Amino acid sequence: MSDPPRLGPVSAGPRPPPGTGAGDVRLVGFADRVSVERAQEWVDRQARRLAAVELGVAEAVGRLPIAPLLAPQPFPLLDRAMEDGYAVRSAETVGASTYDPVLLRVQDGSVPLATGGAALVAAGADLPRGADAILPFDAAQAAGPALEVIAAVAEGAGVERAGQQVQAGAPLAGGARPIRPHQAGLLAAAGIERLRVVERPRVRLVVAGAKAGAGGRGADAHGPMLRALVERDGGVVEPPEAGIGVREAIRRAAAAPGADLLLATGRTGTGPDDEAPPALAEIGRLEIHGVALRPGGTAGMGVVGALPVILLPGDPLACLCAYELLAGRLVRRLGGRDPGLPHARLEAEVGRKIVSAVGFLEVCQVRLASGRVEPLGVAESGGLAAAARADGFVLVPAALEGYPPGARVTVHLY
Amino acid sequence: MSDPPRLGPVSAGPRPPPGTGAGDVRLVGFADRVSVERAQEWVDRQARRLAAVELGVAEAVGRLPIAPLLAPQPFPLLDRAMEDGYAVRSAETVGASTYDPVLLRVQDGSVPLATGGAALVAAGADLPRGADAILPFDAAQAAGPALEVIAAVAEGAGVERAGQQVQAGAPLAGGARPIRPHQAGLLAAAGIERLRVVERPRVRLVVAGAKAGAGGRGADAHGPMLRALVERDGGVVEPPEAGIGVREAIRRAAAAPGADLLLATGRTGTGPDDEAPPALAEIGRLEIHGVALRPGGTAGMGVVGALPVILLPGDPLACLCAYELLAGRLVRRLGGRDPGLPHARLEAEVGRKIVSAVGFLEVCQVRLASGRVEPLGVAESGGLAAAARADGFVLVPAALEGYPPGARVTVHLY
Repeated sequence: MSDPPRLGPVSAGPRPPPGTGAGDVRLVGFADRVSVERAQEWVDRQARRLAAVELGVAEAVGRLPIAPLLAPQPFPLLDRAMEDGYAVRSAETVGASTYDPVLLRVQDGSVPLATGGAALVAAGADLPRGADAILPFDAAQAAGPALEVIAAVAEGAGVERAGQQVQAGAPLAGGARPIRPHQAGLLAAAGIERLRVVERPRVRLVVAGAKAGAGGRGADAHGPMLRALVERDGGVVEPPEAGIGVREAIRRAAAAPGADLLLATGRTGTGPDDEAPPALAEIGRLEIHGVALRPGGTAGMGVVGALPVILLPGDPLACLCAYELLAGRLVRRLGGRDPGLPHARLEAEVGRKIVSAVGFLEVCQVRLASGRVEPLGVAESGGLAAAARADGFVLVPAALEGYPPGARVTVHLY
Repeated sequence: MSDPPRLGPVSAGPRPPPGTGAGDVRLVGFADRVSVERAQEWVDRQARRLAAVELGVAEAVGRLPIAPLLAPQPFPLLDRAMEDGYAVRSAETVGASTYDPVLLRVQDGSVPLATGGAALVAAGADLPRGADAILPFDAAQAAGPALEVIAAVAEGAGVERAGQQVQAGAPLAGGARPIRPHQAGLLAAAGIERLRVVERPRVRLVVAGAKAGAGGRGADAHGPMLRALVERDGGVVEPPEAGIGVREAIRRAAAAPGADLLLATGRTGTGPDDEAPPALAEIGRLEIHGVALRPGGTAGMGVVGALPVILLPGDPLACLCAYELLAGRLVRRLGGRDPGLPHARLEAEVGRKIVSAVGFLEVCQVRLASGRVEPLGVAESGGLAAAARADGFVLVPAALEGYPPGARVTVHLY
């Protein structure tokens, strides 16, 4: 009973260059860690743009066009009524009043406007040729074919000019942001029915089982969380294969193509059963292990063939943080999105001191109290429960030991 | 050709009380309009809570629990290691240094710690009884069964106490916000595998065809936009039946149950073909028509039997605004969500004057330029294209005629 547990076989794969922290850390600890910036550069190097797929406008909401979408023609195409009323020549209404009404003659709106004519039009209808304004109903009284105009209307009133909303060639959507609901409406209105969007990144997920020594407890907290996070970032998660370990999953990933990214959670640390990094080193290439990130510092990165593999820590909060800053960045990049954190941001003042360790980028869970930022404990102490209670998080750069009260910080909102 | 178009049959249904703006407005205009606040009160009265459905934790992300979810037990259940290392009695490490190491004896971690014992544990593992700290690997050197401790460790170091993250009975998720990805992780970690969430509101959608007089142009901008908006708010849209008009859709809705809300877009204004409000008045009850909202002022509301019906304007931007403030509010309420606008918010300073009409709640599309708010044209002028270019919108209350430069406003971000 007094022998220390033995290690698994030590990596037989090519050894990474020094300074990447990718040596075997089991029972030893991390000799050095890669900065978050360098780990993100690794992520960015893995990101090749995925294939395109053509979709209808309705299906394309939340997806990323492969190129900015430009208006094929002006919108609206012709001058049109912006409101219901009578299309008129504004000059013919000058001087009209209740006491001295101007008489116009009601005609059909599908033919050019006759001199002294007025045509009933609905909002959105093309303006009859010759008309230059819409007379609202409360400025006129119809009496059979005659229209009594009791107020003048200015040129252009109630009229939307051709191209007023969009000139031909103007961008309608695209860039690095997914299509929003109302942009889909605009695309449809502009006559774009189908468009090409970037394919969703396919993410294969391996979740290590409960830790040895945790008494068999600890339901899979990672699967539900990561699936939802990957979907938020535009990816799709392959249904995880049950009952296979990290080593076997990495082996199968090398043999079975079809995924764009392998995420393996758990067994990334310095404990005796932390087999994920040596398994990746053995089967593929472990390029980074240990990141100056808290929580999340045991994350690792590498490749099996052309497939990027990211090893996420088993602690759920560390897993969340490493996902947001590293793995999620790759999911977003692969799908062509903005690689930065996708959370809404708020600038706010620190109300209670935020403490952080120098040398690590710290992810501090915070809540907003009367508009001021308050930390929920330090770094790892509150676990995922702190994140679940938090309004968002603040990133404290590695060079700082925190933020004093009164400092302005950016809160990434959940 | 000179006869004015004739109206359809005038409503034979019960007439609404005066002051609701629900008289027949065709060719006449709105005599009065209901304030947005009163229209929202109508929405709130329609909202009965939907049934519950039981889901697994992973499927429940983005859904709303029917009641707050409480921790069934403390989490973690027992004291456990927060990091990899050796579980020790901290008192036995006092005075340890490189020059004067303390010798401990490595034992198994599944039995209580012997006097002078140290047990290798992985982060997340239960602490052996008797241990009160985790000695990191860099503070010890193993030599066979002996462990040379070269630095002292404080009581509680590296240990997460039972209940430190969550006390039994503490809320884990719920309230009026959908479950977030990391909350799902926490629920799973706390042993909650399935939960009951509010059923999704089922929304039936009717999209009126292109306006008479618009030359047959104008693809359906509403369907894709509304589908995406309803889904954002937690609802599901029934596939719309093609080729049926508003009148027929309202008639069918009365006969065929199964939806929680009918949204009909288009034909809500004062033009001759604006048949939606009179059709609702005839078949069911038109309770409000005309809202002091810009854009979106021709919106209408009523019921067919027990089914709420909201009539959304045909202009796409007006449709968007009336959806966000009225219809979306009902979708969110039905699904048990916070009924307020779901957009992230930002307080910012107005950089360029925002002009608005007194008497209407105006939805002003804005962009942020160097952190300051700039309007994109006034009210309706930019159409949906302005919204597509905007970073968000500002609501200008009916009592104000706008905001001067320097005013602090809330931007609802797209």
